[in-house]
Amino acid sequence: MTGTLSDRAATIMARCDELATHSEEPDRLTRSYGTPALRAARDAVAAWMTAAGLAVRTDALGNLYGRLEAVQPETKTLLLGSHLDSVRDAGRYDGPLGVLTALAAVEGLAKARRQLPFAVEVVAFADEEGLRFPTVYLGSRALTGMVSADLLALRDAGGITLAEAIRDFGGDPAALPGAQRDPAELLGYVEVHIEQGPVLEREGLPIGVVSAIAGQSRFSISLSGVAGHAGTIPMALRHDALCAAAEVILAIEELARATPGLVATVGQLQVEPGASNVVPGQVTFSLDLRHALDTTRRDAVATLEARASGIAAARAIELDWRLGTENAALSCDSATLSQLAGAITAAGFPVRELVSGAGHDAVMLSRLCPVAMLFVRCAGGISHNPAESVTTADVSVALDVLDRYIAELATTSG
Amino acid sequence: MTGTLSDRAATIMARCDELATHSEEPDRLTRSYGTPALRAARDAVAAWMTAAGLAVRTDALGNLYGRLEAVQPETKTLLLGSHLDSVRDAGRYDGPLGVLTALAAVEGLAKARRQLPFAVEVVAFADEEGLRFPTVYLGSRALTGMVSADLLALRDAGGITLAEAIRDFGGDPAALPGAQRDPAELLGYVEVHIEQGPVLEREGLPIGVVSAIAGQSRFSISLSGVAGHAGTIPMALRHDALCAAAEVILAIEELARATPGLVATVGQLQVEPGASNVVPGQVTFSLDLRHALDTTRRDAVATLEARASGIAAARAIELDWRLGTENAALSCDSATLSQLAGAITAAGFPVRELVSGAGHDAVMLSRLCPVAMLFVRCAGGISHNPAESVTTADVSVALDVLDRYIAELATTSG
Repeated sequence: MTGTLSDRAATIMARCDELATHSEEPDRLTRSYGTPALRAARDAVAAWMTAAGLAVRTDALGNLYGRLEAVQPETKTLLLGSHLDSVRDAGRYDGPLGVLTALAAVEGLAKARRQLPFAVEVVAFADEEGLRFPTVYLGSRALTGMVSADLLALRDAGGITLAEAIRDFGGDPAALPGAQRDPAELLGYVEVHIEQGPVLEREGLPIGVVSAIAGQSRFSISLSGVAGHAGTIPMALRHDALCAAAEVILAIEELARATPGLVATVGQLQVEPGASNVVPGQVTFSLDLRHALDTTRRDAVATLEARASGIAAARAIELDWRLGTENAALSCDSATLSQLAGAITAAGFPVRELVSGAGHDAVMLSRLCPVAMLFVRCAGGISHNPAESVTTADVSVALDVLDRYIAELATTSG
Repeated sequence: MTGTLSDRAATIMARCDELATHSEEPDRLTRSYGTPALRAARDAVAAWMTAAGLAVRTDALGNLYGRLEAVQPETKTLLLGSHLDSVRDAGRYDGPLGVLTALAAVEGLAKARRQLPFAVEVVAFADEEGLRFPTVYLGSRALTGMVSADLLALRDAGGITLAEAIRDFGGDPAALPGAQRDPAELLGYVEVHIEQGPVLEREGLPIGVVSAIAGQSRFSISLSGVAGHAGTIPMALRHDALCAAAEVILAIEELARATPGLVATVGQLQVEPGASNVVPGQVTFSLDLRHALDTTRRDAVATLEARASGIAAARAIELDWRLGTENAALSCDSATLSQLAGAITAAGFPVRELVSGAGHDAVMLSRLCPVAMLFVRCAGGISHNPAESVTTADVSVALDVLDRYIAELATTSG
């Protein structure tokens, strides 16, 4: 490999900065599927891939690949990457850091004219966040063949269908089956990503390995009491939906605090009628519950629904507890985990296993091959925000670990 | 007096029904200051006053008066009445019941050709609810001379100033000083009103006497924590503003339940950023606190602010506790209370003293003369709602009590 780790990490950082200039909004970073901003970012990455000597192509959805062939053709492929699209008013690392760290690793191999017993492909997915269309993981979904006619008919806020957006982006909805990857051909998928949480920073660690991606249950919960005049209904005669909701919210927090690894969040709440001088008649709120173990998550849901029922009954208030979406947890591949842990140890750091509470492209890829992820410390655990921040030093650790992982895999596969 | 009590009560009910047909909205009852709907309602009441032989006039704000002169001119005046305007999507009794019960009582005197040692005036205020302009008690305020230039410059949602609205309604802002009443000329003000609460219904009583109108403190309370990703921030590292708010809301409820006569309501609440997958960073909510004793209310405020500070500090969350408006409690006139209590006893009912948690025109009139109120049982304690409902039987009790009160006052003043 050429260049010191810190030089290569500095290149990754500079490239993250450059990609951040490609935005569909003038004063902030927003880069959704199919936009000129996304195309410009993809073109920049493609140019870097080409300069590195990789074979560059895009698929029918617009995902970008840069491939380093194996010593022997017809061998398996290791996929490394992440996504290039963003949320609205995004930071510059969620997605691009994974693409560009993967590119730096493969660039290192290419510059050193090393070929491995397997092909390595850097993949830059064209949609993971789902900002433009009401879906997520669209890019990695194309590799699984799961972009259905229903999805292609989805419309963005301007009424443009996904099928039209794919064509506008230079893709071809009819050719999507060609974007599918054969599981037999894939060695695995490894993704570098910012942690999006504060654990590594709290523990003073630059890197962690993701053991699982949490399963998730989302609910819409309504409590219906009786609205009334704030001045004239005595406390003892009230059926205040907001007081009931407050009890449920604290019960949710209490259970989540008492259950290791469980996170539970009430992020939205509406009060009806919502006047300062009217006792709340109805409150509707969201509940987002996540855990690495599906059984723990399901037990928590059952416990909370029972507690909410009890709270509502004691207040003669009606409870409507409605499931929205539910996703099972994903355990990362244990062999890949061990290999990444070995690389972290070799790089001189303790191995910290983390559960990812956020979803990632790895969720989709797990349908095809073993997956694993590396998390990089980010300042304050902040993500989906222009304040997103990582250090060059931590990125160089991530690159070192990825280099070592690939090298070790090449040895054991060799 | 002519007509049985129940016939006269039936007339009151029929007139409430007729006034309910005058609305500025086609499918529901809404009658705000200065509208053609309010003018039509006022015209109808004026016609009934004229038919009853009362001397009818309006003042510069548009309040309506029907006067029965005393035996001797230059004597004091007893004011009886309420308001003709309404909230949006209102019931038909809040306001009109008081005007029309007063009219029925005075109509009874006039038909019987009785003159009293004092004049009696039925007053129908043109604005109490403050639906159109951001103020309340505008009608009764005109009698106190407190309609300031600042108030006249207030604009409605359509940009029309109060001064313009007064002129459009046939009034005259420049002549407002002439609407002032001389305290030396006023014997008192008695208002019949629906309870707007469930106490009389719970206790099986048709009528109650108002001993005080509660003082009120309104606050806007903000809790600022740290927003974050619902999947990635462990529970132990959260500063969830909504969980903090839930604790404060329950502390408010607990104190109000434990303090006789205190009512406390959180009726509005906003969560920022308000996404189901984001830990709430900031919550802002209203607090409306009322009690008949100002000391009790102030003690409760101090206790709650201290509790909220403690809750916020324990969670490393910032508290902003901001006073909006504050009104002192009003004690009704004890002599008038005794007279009304005597009339209730004479009518055959136990005397139930109530605190009004809602404000009324009596609050404004108390600046000029002794005030007191009678509350009439209403179904379910419901008000400010088309479901507002009273029975003819209960209205006939209210009328009987008012008749007896006036008669007794005439005897003792004679």
